[in-house]
Amino acid sequence: MFNWRLFRTLFCRTGTLINAIFPRGVMMYKSSLAFMQKFSSVSEPSSDLLNRASNVRRAASYLGQTSDDQRRLALNSMADALAQNSEEIIEANKKDLERSAKDGLADALMARLKLNEIKLESSISGVRKVADLPDPIGLRQLHRELDKGLELERITVPLGVLGVIFEARPDAVIQIASLAIKSGNGAILKGGSEALLTNEAIMNALNLGLSSSEISPKALTLLTSREESLALLRLDGLVDLIIPRGSNEFVRFIQDNTRIPVLGHADGICHLYIDKEADLDQALRIAIDSKTQYPAACNAIETLLIHQNIASLFLSKAIPVFEEMGVSLVGDKESQIIGIKLAATESDWSTEYLDLKLSVKIVNDMTIALDHIRRYGSRHTESIVTKNKTTADHFLRAVDSAGVYHNCSTRFADGFRYGFGAEVGISTQTLPPRGPVGLEGLVTYRYRLRGDGHIAEDFASGTRNFTHIDLK
Amino acid sequence: MFNWRLFRTLFCRTGTLINAIFPRGVMMYKSSLAFMQKFSSVSEPSSDLLNRASNVRRAASYLGQTSDDQRRLALNSMADALAQNSEEIIEANKKDLERSAKDGLADALMARLKLNEIKLESSISGVRKVADLPDPIGLRQLHRELDKGLELERITVPLGVLGVIFEARPDAVIQIASLAIKSGNGAILKGGSEALLTNEAIMNALNLGLSSSEISPKALTLLTSREESLALLRLDGLVDLIIPRGSNEFVRFIQDNTRIPVLGHADGICHLYIDKEADLDQALRIAIDSKTQYPAACNAIETLLIHQNIASLFLSKAIPVFEEMGVSLVGDKESQIIGIKLAATESDWSTEYLDLKLSVKIVNDMTIALDHIRRYGSRHTESIVTKNKTTADHFLRAVDSAGVYHNCSTRFADGFRYGFGAEVGISTQTLPPRGPVGLEGLVTYRYRLRGDGHIAEDFASGTRNFTHIDLK
Repeated sequence: MFNWRLFRTLFCRTGTLINAIFPRGVMMYKSSLAFMQKFSSVSEPSSDLLNRASNVRRAASYLGQTSDDQRRLALNSMADALAQNSEEIIEANKKDLERSAKDGLADALMARLKLNEIKLESSISGVRKVADLPDPIGLRQLHRELDKGLELERITVPLGVLGVIFEARPDAVIQIASLAIKSGNGAILKGGSEALLTNEAIMNALNLGLSSSEISPKALTLLTSREESLALLRLDGLVDLIIPRGSNEFVRFIQDNTRIPVLGHADGICHLYIDKEADLDQALRIAIDSKTQYPAACNAIETLLIHQNIASLFLSKAIPVFEEMGVSLVGDKESQIIGIKLAATESDWSTEYLDLKLSVKIVNDMTIALDHIRRYGSRHTESIVTKNKTTADHFLRAVDSAGVYHNCSTRFADGFRYGFGAEVGISTQTLPPRGPVGLEGLVTYRYRLRGDGHIAEDFASGTRNFTHIDLK
Repeated sequence: MFNWRLFRTLFCRTGTLINAIFPRGVMMYKSSLAFMQKFSSVSEPSSDLLNRASNVRRAASYLGQTSDDQRRLALNSMADALAQNSEEIIEANKKDLERSAKDGLADALMARLKLNEIKLESSISGVRKVADLPDPIGLRQLHRELDKGLELERITVPLGVLGVIFEARPDAVIQIASLAIKSGNGAILKGGSEALLTNEAIMNALNLGLSSSEISPKALTLLTSREESLALLRLDGLVDLIIPRGSNEFVRFIQDNTRIPVLGHADGICHLYIDKEADLDQALRIAIDSKTQYPAACNAIETLLIHQNIASLFLSKAIPVFEEMGVSLVGDKESQIIGIKLAATESDWSTEYLDLKLSVKIVNDMTIALDHIRRYGSRHTESIVTKNKTTADHFLRAVDSAGVYHNCSTRFADGFRYGFGAEVGISTQTLPPRGPVGLEGLVTYRYRLRGDGHIAEDFASGTRNFTHIDLK
């Protein structure tokens, strides 16, 4: 059987990226573990790195003030430069492949490392698509008169500088660089050492492209040593957001070793609850899609919770279908009585299989299902199948996950499917940005206040009073 | 001279809190340093703490599903119970004061610890005001049709459980508990040991109040030992946001010792730039207000940047006024030539005085001012005084702080002044929530998707296509 686990999507990618902007996708492997094992302590940044990071920050400061037109032109110029330098990039990639083959890189990783013409063309067309997305910066979120002549605005602005650590796939450089430029951010990128020459060739092309635009090539820089990428975690004040693209363990390692905010998540343990009043055909259809449409994605389900009243009927239909699709089922005692062959252990409930495996539990009522989700879920995405709207509303209110669904597949938890145009990743943290994160995850906001000599003392003394009128 | 530094507002409080919802304010001291020194390593949570935290989480889960009416009634019931138990609370406070006096607690801390009837009444009226604020939860931020019959919503929801660590002032318990309940969050509170009996008496009253409401008293819990409050930092998954109320060092200690997001900030080093085209009377008025209206606040300026063309004229007016107001001035070489008596050292530019002291630097042009702000600022609030709109717009675009102002005092950087009704604190982190944070800083959002058997495979195979229509 195909080893889905190897194809663990990083940063909880949900698979549609592959079919959308970057057709060949950006998926990574668990080999980031090696990266962590080799460096148990995080090094301090060298003066060279501090200098480079300061240059990125400075360039980003100007980039953040550019118009959408300027950024769109720059992105198209980057795309042009990639096209013009495609031979050099593919040549560099061949060298990376040769060296990695000698080093005995695993076949799956070799496949990911490979950047052929078709893959590169898709990436280039992805850059042009990002160029045409709506501008995420300069949006006014609030406009309020505080007093006559004293007007407050809240405007979206870039975060500043992104620090991105990823592995193997060289096309990730292209994708991340384009999302960064579109959102007005500088970026410090660290790719896998296997892809070193390819990454360098790509970065050269991107810098060339920016050189013939109004945006400084200094806004993007590539780190090439592991020491540098670890020191990157120490660049508080110069880097505003770390985006790790690696395994759950890798993300946790990053979170534990930096004070800079980290956009990412650990597990994606999603549940589908089939209520006693479910349409069983619909329930089966949704269960199959949620589990098998792309099992390696974080938004695929790992556990099926079934109301006892319909469990027997549902499983009699579902078990043969799942078996036919190669899904291995493990279940609690009750479900074993009615047909599941293998027992689920305690650890099954908290395991993200990322594979054609599904745990099944029979529940007496929805409260037990909600308790189970609260205990074992990762607050990613949960779905209920029921014809009863009241039950559905209760579930939608009670489940505290980034996504809570009714009568549809958990696989919709995805930036492209939500209509965000591009997906930075999926976040299971509680604070925003939460769930699928589009370009808006790469911006923040700033308050602008314009007055005419207004001072606080006049309001403290009661000479003047705030009007607090929201303006159109 | 009055020691403003002692009155360092915690969590970057800006002073208006005192005049608004909680008239006696919630300000803390640097003694949190002792807390850090005593515990260099953070302990693991005990099973008792895990159990209590789980109870808060469970109660918060139900609280998050209540209506605004239910929460408003609960808050008023809390206020009633505080009023009914005011004697016990003040009696407990007397015991805390007696013990602390014997322990030799500093006078300023004693004053903070003291909770008399007037103070308590103000706090109780604060609870009723929070009750009447607009409901921050259940707001729909996005409503989109993904396909016929497949509708996506983004709804604001509570964060879950807040972990709040603060010191000395017992009225902070009342304030935080009311903000938590209003925003649908549970809260685990840890107050200073000096205020132990008072905090317990207050918490008893709050629990009593909740008992006669539809909200479980278990939603609020008070930790009483230091070990517990440190173990609180390890409650990932049970606590969603840590709110530390202490010195800059204290906040940094918390940030370094937890994986849970921390709402807070280190320094508030704000700048006022007086452009060559400034109205000098207006500039002086704004400079005085920004420095002296409440010097201990984080939104007071620490550095004045003055364009060389008007520096001499401005300082000839400003120096006598500042001297009269007791403001000690230190300056760079150029400013010393034109009247500033004391030299500013390199460390002056990065020092948050929180006191009647101001550093002054003369700049050749705005670029130098922007560079200075980029280098030494804490991205809190910066203001420009100029009659030239183009110059102002450039400044407002170029400065990457939470607040960027034109022709007004930096002292407006405050949740009440912005019209948020309540202020949780001011955040200088880059990611939202940024700047003054109201109740909206205590909520997040959740995606709800309602379908009718929709599965992802139909869209992957091209059988169906996303419509992505935004709905009213």
